Amino acid sequence: MKSYTQYLTFNTKKHREFINLTEKVTQEIEKSTIQEGFCLVSAMHITAGVFINDNELGLLTDIESWLNKLAPEGQNYNHHKTGETNGDAHLRNLVIGHQVTVPVTKGRPDLGPWQSIFYAEFDGQRDKKLLIKIIGE
Amino acid sequence: MKSYTQYLTFNTKKHREFINLTEKVTQEIEKSTIQEGFCLVSAMHITAGVFINDNELGLLTDIESWLNKLAPEGQNYNHHKTGETNGDAHLRNLVIGHQVTVPVTKGRPDLGPWQSIFYAEFDGQRDKKLLIKIIGE
Amino acid sequence: MKSYTQYLTFNTKKHREFINLTEKVTQEIEKSTIQEGFCLVSAMHITAGVFINDNELGLLTDIESWLNKLAPEGQNYNHHKTGETNGDAHLRNLVIGHQVTVPVTKGRPDLGPWQSIFYAEFDGQRDKKLLIKIIGE
Repeated sequence: MKSYTQYLTFNTKKHREFINLTEKVTQEIEKSTIQEGFCLVSAMHITAGVFINDNELGLLTDIESWLNKLAPEGQNYNHHKTGETNGDAHLRNLVIGHQVTVPVTKGRPDLGPWQSIFYAEFDGQRDKKLLIKIIGE
Repeated sequence: MKSYTQYLTFNTKKHREFINLTEKVTQEIEKSTIQEGFCLVSAMHITAGVFINDNELGLLTDIESWLNKLAPEGQNYNHHKTGETNGDAHLRNLVIGHQVTVPVTKGRPDLGPWQSIFYAEFDGQRDKKLLIKIIGE
Repeated sequence: MKSYTQYLTFNTKKHREFINLTEKVTQEIEKSTIQEGFCLVSAMHITAGVFINDNELGLLTDIESWLNKLAPEGQNYNHHKTGETNGDAHLRNLVIGHQVTVPVTKGRPDLGPWQSIFYAEFDGQRDKKLLIKIIGE
Protein backbone atom coordinates (compact mmCIF):
# COMPACT_ATOMS: atom_id res chain seq x y z
CA MET A 1 0.00 0.00 0.00
CA LYS A 2 1.17 3.50 -0.82
CA SER A 3 0.09 6.74 0.80
CA TYR A 4 0.48 10.37 -0.21
CA THR A 5 -0.34 13.47 1.85
CA GLN A 6 -0.56 17.06 0.70
CA TYR A 7 -1.67 20.22 2.53
CA LEU A 8 -3.12 23.22 0.70
CA THR A 9 -3.65 26.68 2.18
CA PHE A 10 -6.39 29.05 1.09
CA ASN A 11 -6.70 32.72 1.95
CA THR A 12 -9.82 33.90 0.16
CA LYS A 13 -10.39 37.52 -0.81
CA LYS A 14 -14.03 37.36 0.21
CA HIS A 15 -15.54 36.24 3.52
CA ARG A 16 -17.33 33.38 1.74
CA GLU A 17 -16.17 31.72 -1.43
CA PHE A 18 -16.48 28.47 -3.39
CA ILE A 19 -13.26 27.22 -4.99
CA ASN A 20 -13.26 24.46 -7.61
CA LEU A 21 -10.62 21.91 -6.54
CA THR A 22 -11.17 19.30 -9.23
CA GLU A 23 -8.07 20.07 -11.28
CA LYS A 24 -5.84 20.37 -8.21
CA VAL A 25 -7.10 17.04 -6.82
CA THR A 26 -6.51 15.40 -10.22
CA GLN A 27 -2.92 16.70 -10.20
CA GLU A 28 -2.26 15.45 -6.68
CA ILE A 29 -3.58 12.01 -7.59
CA GLU A 30 -1.20 11.98 -10.57
CA LYS A 31 1.72 13.01 -8.36
CA SER A 32 0.91 10.21 -5.91
CA THR A 33 1.26 7.64 -8.74
CA ILE A 34 -1.51 5.67 -7.00
CA GLN A 35 -3.65 3.87 -9.56
CA GLU A 36 -6.40 2.32 -7.41
CA GLY A 37 -7.49 3.72 -4.06
CA PHE A 38 -9.28 6.47 -2.17
CA CYS A 39 -8.45 10.16 -2.06
CA LEU A 40 -9.71 12.00 1.02
CA VAL A 41 -10.26 15.74 0.53
CA SER A 42 -10.85 17.18 3.97
CA ALA A 43 -11.00 20.71 5.41
CA MET A 44 -8.82 21.13 8.52
CA HIS A 45 -11.07 23.88 9.86
CA ILE A 46 -14.56 23.86 11.33
CA THR A 47 -15.81 26.85 9.39
CA ALA A 48 -15.20 25.50 5.89
CA GLY A 49 -16.63 22.62 3.90
CA VAL A 50 -15.87 20.33 1.01
CA PHE A 51 -18.58 19.10 -1.32
CA ILE A 52 -19.12 17.66 -4.79
CA ASN A 53 -21.68 19.26 -7.06
CA ASP A 54 -22.18 21.02 -10.38
CA ASN A 55 -19.78 23.76 -11.51
CA GLU A 56 -22.67 26.01 -12.62
CA LEU A 57 -22.57 29.60 -11.43
CA GLY A 58 -26.32 29.97 -10.93
CA LEU A 59 -26.40 26.85 -8.79
CA LEU A 60 -23.50 28.07 -6.66
CA THR A 61 -25.46 31.27 -5.90
CA ASP A 62 -28.46 29.07 -5.05
CA ILE A 63 -26.33 27.06 -2.60
CA GLU A 64 -25.09 30.29 -1.03
CA SER A 65 -28.58 31.72 -0.44
CA TRP A 66 -29.95 28.34 0.62
CA LEU A 67 -27.23 28.00 3.28
CA ASN A 68 -28.02 31.52 4.44
CA LYS A 69 -31.58 30.36 5.01
CA LEU A 70 -30.67 27.10 6.79
CA ALA A 71 -27.86 28.64 8.88
CA PRO A 72 -28.31 32.42 8.87
CA GLU A 73 -25.51 34.75 9.80
CA GLY A 74 -25.91 37.57 12.32
CA GLN A 75 -27.96 35.48 14.75
CA ASN A 76 -27.56 35.60 18.47
CA TYR A 77 -25.57 32.35 18.64
CA ASN A 78 -24.28 31.25 22.05
CA HIS A 79 -20.92 30.70 20.37
CA HIS A 80 -20.67 34.48 19.96
CA LYS A 81 -20.28 34.91 23.73
CA THR A 82 -16.67 33.82 23.17
CA GLY A 83 -16.14 36.91 21.01
CA GLU A 84 -16.50 34.97 17.76
CA THR A 85 -19.00 36.08 15.11
CA ASN A 86 -18.95 32.99 12.90
CA GLY A 87 -21.65 30.74 14.38
CA ASP A 88 -23.32 30.44 10.99
CA ALA A 89 -20.04 29.20 9.43
CA HIS A 90 -19.86 26.31 11.94
CA LEU A 91 -23.43 25.25 11.11
CA ARG A 92 -22.84 25.49 7.35
CA ASN A 93 -19.86 23.17 7.81
CA LEU A 94 -22.26 20.65 9.37
CA VAL A 95 -24.87 20.87 6.59
CA ILE A 96 -22.41 20.59 3.71
CA GLY A 97 -19.87 18.33 5.38
CA HIS A 98 -16.15 18.94 5.65
CA GLN A 99 -14.85 16.10 3.49
CA VAL A 100 -15.39 13.86 0.52
CA THR A 101 -13.75 10.60 -0.49
CA VAL A 102 -12.85 10.62 -4.17
CA PRO A 103 -12.47 7.13 -5.66
CA VAL A 104 -9.24 6.74 -7.68
CA THR A 105 -9.41 4.41 -10.68
CA LYS A 106 -6.60 3.98 -13.24
CA GLY A 107 -4.78 6.92 -11.69
CA ARG A 108 -7.68 9.36 -12.11
CA PRO A 109 -10.52 10.70 -9.92
CA ASP A 110 -13.45 8.43 -10.75
CA LEU A 111 -16.16 11.09 -10.96
CA GLY A 112 -19.30 11.47 -13.05
CA PRO A 113 -19.26 14.03 -15.90
CA TRP A 114 -20.86 16.83 -13.83
CA GLN A 115 -19.15 16.14 -10.52
CA SER A 116 -16.79 18.92 -9.46
CA ILE A 117 -15.06 19.05 -6.08
CA PHE A 118 -15.47 22.34 -4.21
CA TYR A 119 -13.81 23.90 -1.20
CA ALA A 120 -16.44 26.02 0.56
CA GLU A 121 -15.01 28.86 2.60
CA PHE A 122 -17.51 30.17 5.13
CA ASP A 123 -15.19 32.41 7.18
CA GLY A 124 -12.20 33.38 5.08
CA GLN A 125 -9.74 36.21 4.56
CA ARG A 126 -7.19 34.30 6.63
CA ASP A 127 -5.06 31.18 6.13
CA LYS A 128 -7.13 28.00 6.16
CA LYS A 129 -5.74 24.51 5.53
CA LEU A 130 -7.09 21.58 3.55
CA LEU A 131 -5.70 18.05 3.50
CA ILE A 132 -5.55 15.73 0.51
CA LYS A 133 -4.60 12.19 1.47
CA ILE A 134 -4.51 9.27 -0.94
CA ILE A 135 -4.07 5.61 -0.04
CA GLY A 136 -3.97 2.72 -2.46
CA GLU A 137 -1.69 1.01 -4.91
CA MET B 1 -3.87 -4.43 -1.02
CA LYS B 2 -6.71 -5.44 -3.30
CA SER B 3 -9.23 -3.18 -4.99
CA TYR B 4 -12.55 -3.87 -6.68
CA THR B 5 -14.69 -1.43 -8.68
CA GLN B 6 -18.25 -1.87 -9.85
CA TYR B 7 -20.64 0.55 -11.57
CA LEU B 8 -24.41 0.25 -11.25
CA THR B 9 -26.98 2.09 -13.40
CA PHE B 10 -30.44 3.07 -12.17
CA ASN B 11 -33.32 4.31 -14.27
CA THR B 12 -36.16 4.84 -11.82
CA LYS B 13 -39.80 4.76 -12.85
CA LYS B 14 -40.62 7.74 -10.65
CA HIS B 15 -38.98 11.16 -10.55
CA ARG B 16 -37.92 10.54 -6.95
CA GLU B 17 -37.27 7.15 -5.41
CA PHE B 18 -35.37 5.46 -2.58
CA ILE B 19 -33.73 2.13 -3.47
CA ASN B 20 -32.39 -0.22 -0.80
CA LEU B 21 -28.84 -1.19 -1.84
CA THR B 22 -27.87 -3.26 1.17
CA GLU B 23 -28.14 -6.66 -0.48
CA LYS B 24 -26.40 -5.51 -3.67
CA VAL B 25 -23.52 -3.98 -1.68
CA THR B 26 -23.23 -7.19 0.34
CA GLN B 27 -22.98 -9.20 -2.90
CA GLU B 28 -20.33 -6.90 -4.37
CA ILE B 29 -18.25 -7.17 -1.18
CA GLU B 30 -18.48 -10.96 -1.47
CA LYS B 31 -17.43 -10.85 -5.13
CA SER B 32 -14.43 -8.68 -4.23
CA THR B 33 -13.20 -11.39 -1.81
CA ILE B 34 -11.88 -8.54 0.37
CA GLN B 35 -12.12 -9.48 4.05
CA GLU B 36 -11.03 -6.28 5.81
CA GLY B 37 -11.34 -2.84 4.27
CA PHE B 38 -13.61 0.01 3.22
CA CYS B 39 -16.40 -0.04 0.64
CA LEU B 40 -17.25 3.36 -0.85
CA VAL B 41 -20.80 3.64 -2.19
CA SER B 42 -20.93 6.88 -4.14
CA ALA B 43 -23.42 8.46 -6.56
CA MET B 44 -21.78 9.68 -9.78
CA HIS B 45 -24.45 12.35 -10.24
CA ILE B 46 -25.18 15.60 -8.42
CA THR B 47 -28.91 15.10 -8.19
CA ALA B 48 -28.86 11.82 -6.28
CA GLY B 49 -27.69 10.80 -2.84
CA VAL B 50 -26.58 7.81 -0.81
CA PHE B 51 -27.43 7.44 2.86
CA ILE B 52 -27.74 4.87 5.60
CA ASN B 53 -30.91 4.75 7.66
CA ASP B 54 -33.84 2.56 8.64
CA ASN B 55 -35.71 0.49 6.05
CA GLU B 56 -39.11 1.54 7.44
CA LEU B 57 -41.66 2.79 4.93
CA GLY B 58 -43.17 5.47 7.18
CA LEU B 59 -39.74 6.91 7.86
CA LEU B 60 -38.89 7.00 4.16
CA THR B 61 -42.03 9.08 3.53
CA ASP B 62 -40.96 11.34 6.42
CA ILE B 63 -37.54 11.81 4.81
CA GLU B 64 -39.23 12.65 1.49
CA SER B 65 -41.49 15.35 2.96
CA TRP B 66 -38.73 16.68 5.20
CA LEU B 67 -36.44 17.15 2.19
CA ASN B 68 -39.26 18.89 0.39
CA LYS B 69 -39.38 21.35 3.27
CA LEU B 70 -35.60 21.90 3.48
CA ALA B 71 -35.07 22.05 -0.29
CA PRO B 72 -38.45 22.67 -1.95
CA GLU B 73 -39.04 21.97 -5.60
CA GLY B 74 -40.62 24.50 -7.98
CA GLN B 75 -38.69 27.45 -6.55
CA ASN B 76 -37.22 30.19 -8.67
CA TYR B 77 -33.65 28.82 -8.44
CA ASN B 78 -30.95 30.65 -10.39
CA HIS B 79 -29.88 27.26 -11.70
CA HIS B 80 -33.14 27.15 -13.68
CA LYS B 81 -31.93 29.97 -15.94
CA THR B 82 -29.88 27.26 -17.69
CA GLY B 83 -33.13 25.53 -18.67
CA GLU B 84 -32.85 22.96 -15.86
CA THR B 85 -35.73 22.47 -13.42
CA ASN B 86 -33.92 20.37 -10.81
CA GLY B 87 -32.46 22.94 -8.40
CA ASP B 88 -34.12 21.19 -5.47
CA ALA B 89 -32.44 17.89 -6.42
CA HIS B 90 -28.97 19.48 -6.22
CA LEU B 91 -29.71 20.85 -2.74
CA ARG B 92 -31.13 17.52 -1.52
CA ASN B 93 -27.88 15.88 -2.65
CA LEU B 94 -26.05 18.32 -0.35
CA VAL B 95 -28.27 17.67 2.70
CA ILE B 96 -28.20 13.88 2.44
CA GLY B 97 -24.70 13.49 1.03
CA HIS B 98 -23.75 11.54 -2.07
CA GLN B 99 -21.67 8.78 -0.50
CA VAL B 100 -21.10 6.52 2.46
CA THR B 101 -18.12 4.42 3.45
CA VAL B 102 -19.21 0.95 4.54
CA PRO B 103 -16.70 -0.82 6.78
CA VAL B 104 -15.92 -4.38 5.63
CA THR B 105 -15.16 -6.91 8.38
CA LYS B 106 -14.73 -10.65 7.79
CA GLY B 107 -15.95 -10.20 4.23
CA ARG B 108 -19.25 -8.59 5.23
CA PRO B 109 -20.61 -5.03 5.52
CA ASP B 110 -20.08 -4.16 9.20
CA LEU B 111 -23.43 -2.46 9.82
CA GLY B 112 -25.71 -2.21 12.85
CA PRO B 113 -28.94 -4.25 12.82
CA TRP B 114 -31.11 -1.38 11.52
CA GLN B 115 -28.65 0.17 9.11
CA SER B 116 -29.72 -0.13 5.48
CA ILE B 117 -27.91 1.56 2.59
CA PHE B 118 -30.12 3.62 0.29
CA TYR B 119 -29.68 5.17 -3.11
CA ALA B 120 -31.78 8.35 -3.18
CA GLU B 121 -32.89 9.39 -6.64
CA PHE B 122 -33.97 13.04 -6.72
CA ASP B 123 -34.22 13.49 -10.50
CA GLY B 124 -34.72 10.14 -12.17
CA GLN B 125 -36.42 8.54 -15.14
CA ARG B 126 -33.06 8.48 -16.94
CA ASP B 127 -29.81 6.49 -16.58
CA LYS B 128 -27.88 7.45 -13.45
CA LYS B 129 -24.66 5.78 -12.33
CA LEU B 130 -23.42 4.73 -8.92
CA LEU B 131 -19.93 3.52 -8.05
CA ILE B 132 -19.04 0.81 -5.53
CA LYS B 133 -15.33 0.68 -4.81
CA ILE B 134 -13.74 -1.57 -2.21
CA ILE B 135 -10.15 -1.48 -1.03
CA GLY B 136 -8.58 -3.74 1.56
CA GLU B 137 -7.22 -7.21 1.96
CA MET C 1 -1.94 -3.37 4.50
CA LYS C 2 -3.01 -3.58 8.13
CA SER C 3 -6.50 -3.21 9.54
CA TYR C 4 -7.79 -2.66 13.07
CA THR C 5 -11.40 -2.74 14.26
CA GLN C 6 -12.81 -1.60 17.57
CA TYR C 7 -16.40 -1.30 18.82
CA LEU C 8 -17.44 1.17 21.50
CA THR C 9 -20.74 1.17 23.37
CA PHE C 10 -22.40 4.31 24.74
CA ASN C 11 -25.30 4.48 27.13
CA THR C 12 -25.89 8.18 27.72
CA LYS C 13 -27.58 9.51 30.83
CA LYS C 14 -29.55 12.05 28.83
CA HIS C 15 -31.81 11.48 25.83
CA ARG C 16 -29.51 13.65 23.71
CA GLU C 17 -25.83 14.15 24.30
CA PHE C 18 -22.60 15.13 22.51
CA ILE C 19 -19.52 13.11 23.50
CA ASN C 20 -16.01 14.20 22.53
CA LEU C 21 -14.27 11.17 21.00
CA THR C 22 -10.99 12.79 19.98
CA GLU C 23 -8.85 11.30 22.73
CA LYS C 24 -10.39 7.85 22.38
CA VAL C 25 -9.87 7.86 18.59
CA THR C 26 -6.26 8.98 19.11
CA GLN C 27 -5.71 6.06 21.50
CA GLU C 28 -7.22 3.53 19.10
CA ILE C 29 -5.01 4.80 16.28
CA GLU C 30 -2.00 4.33 18.55
CA LYS C 31 -3.10 0.81 19.46
CA SER C 32 -3.48 -0.06 15.78
CA THR C 33 0.20 0.88 15.18
CA ILE C 34 -0.90 2.11 11.73
CA GLN C 35 1.21 5.09 10.68
CA GLU C 36 -0.43 6.16 7.40
CA GLY C 37 -4.04 5.46 6.53
CA PHE C 38 -7.69 6.25 7.16
CA CYS C 39 -9.67 5.85 10.37
CA LEU C 40 -13.42 5.49 9.91
CA VAL C 41 -15.51 6.56 12.91
CA SER C 42 -19.04 5.41 12.23
CA ALA C 43 -22.21 5.13 14.30
CA MET C 44 -23.86 1.70 14.01
CA HIS C 45 -27.29 3.18 14.72
CA ILE C 46 -29.62 5.37 12.69
CA THR C 47 -30.50 7.73 15.50
CA ALA C 48 -26.98 8.91 16.29
CA GLY C 49 -24.37 10.87 14.37
CA VAL C 50 -20.65 11.52 14.20
CA PHE C 51 -19.27 14.91 13.27
CA ILE C 52 -16.14 17.04 13.55
CA ASN C 53 -16.43 20.56 14.92
CA ASP C 54 -15.30 22.88 17.68
CA ASN C 55 -15.23 21.72 21.32
CA GLU C 56 -16.85 24.94 22.54
CA LEU C 57 -19.80 24.60 24.88
CA GLY C 58 -21.77 27.55 23.50
CA LEU C 59 -21.46 26.19 19.98
CA LEU C 60 -22.63 22.74 21.07
CA THR C 61 -25.81 24.30 22.50
CA ASP C 62 -26.21 26.20 19.21
CA ILE C 63 -25.95 22.92 17.28
CA GLU C 64 -28.56 21.37 19.59
CA SER C 65 -31.12 24.16 19.11
CA TRP C 66 -30.37 24.43 15.40
CA LEU C 67 -31.06 20.71 14.94
CA ASN C 68 -34.27 21.11 16.89
CA LYS C 69 -35.32 23.72 14.33
CA LEU C 70 -34.30 21.69 11.26
CA ALA C 71 -35.66 18.38 12.56
CA PRO C 72 -38.08 19.13 15.40
CA GLU C 73 -39.09 16.51 17.92
CA GLY C 74 -42.70 15.82 18.82
CA GLN C 75 -43.96 16.07 15.25
CA ASN C 76 -46.54 13.79 13.76
CA TYR C 77 -43.98 11.69 11.84
CA ASN C 78 -45.27 8.71 9.86
CA HIS C 79 -42.50 6.69 11.49
CA HIS C 80 -44.37 7.05 14.78
CA LYS C 81 -47.16 4.81 13.51
CA THR C 82 -44.79 1.93 14.27
CA GLY C 83 -44.89 2.92 17.95
CA GLU C 84 -41.55 4.74 17.79
CA THR C 85 -41.27 8.35 18.96
CA ASN C 86 -37.83 9.15 17.54
CA GLY C 87 -38.54 10.45 14.03
CA ASP C 88 -36.55 13.61 14.77
CA ALA C 89 -33.49 11.53 15.74
CA HIS C 90 -33.49 9.77 12.34
CA LEU C 91 -33.60 13.12 10.51
CA ARG C 92 -30.83 14.62 12.69
CA ASN C 93 -28.66 11.62 11.76
CA LEU C 94 -29.17 12.60 8.11
CA VAL C 95 -28.29 16.30 8.60
CA ILE C 96 -25.17 15.67 10.66
CA GLY C 97 -24.07 12.43 9.04
CA HIS C 98 -23.25 9.20 10.82
CA GLN C 99 -19.54 8.94 10.06
CA VAL C 100 -16.28 10.75 9.44
CA THR C 101 -13.01 9.56 7.96
CA VAL C 102 -10.07 10.72 10.05
CA PRO C 103 -6.79 10.84 8.12
CA VAL C 104 -3.93 9.12 9.96
CA THR C 105 -0.45 10.61 9.45
CA LYS C 106 2.65 9.52 11.37
CA GLY C 107 0.47 7.45 13.68
CA ARG C 108 -1.74 10.37 14.72
CA PRO C 109 -5.15 11.76 13.69
CA ASP C 110 -4.29 14.47 11.15
CA LEU C 111 -6.74 17.12 12.34
CA GLY C 112 -6.64 20.91 12.43
CA PRO C 113 -6.11 22.62 15.81
CA TRP C 114 -9.84 23.16 16.47
CA GLN C 115 -11.17 19.92 15.03
CA SER C 116 -12.70 17.63 17.64
CA ILE C 117 -14.55 14.41 16.81
CA PHE C 118 -18.00 14.09 18.40
CA TYR C 119 -20.44 11.28 18.87
CA ALA C 120 -23.94 12.78 18.73
CA GLU C 121 -26.55 10.79 20.60
CA PHE C 122 -30.08 11.72 19.50
CA ASP C 123 -31.99 8.90 21.21
CA GLY C 124 -29.98 7.58 24.10
CA GLN C 125 -30.37 6.03 27.53
CA ARG C 126 -29.78 2.59 26.02
CA ASP C 127 -26.75 0.75 24.58
CA LYS C 128 -25.64 2.19 21.24
CA LYS C 129 -22.61 0.99 19.28
CA LEU C 130 -19.96 2.87 17.36
CA LEU C 131 -17.31 1.38 15.10
CA ILE C 132 -13.73 2.58 14.71
CA LYS C 133 -11.96 0.94 11.80
CA ILE C 134 -8.48 1.84 10.62
CA ILE C 135 -6.78 0.65 7.45
CA GLY C 136 -3.29 1.55 6.32
CA GLU C 137 0.31 0.71 6.97
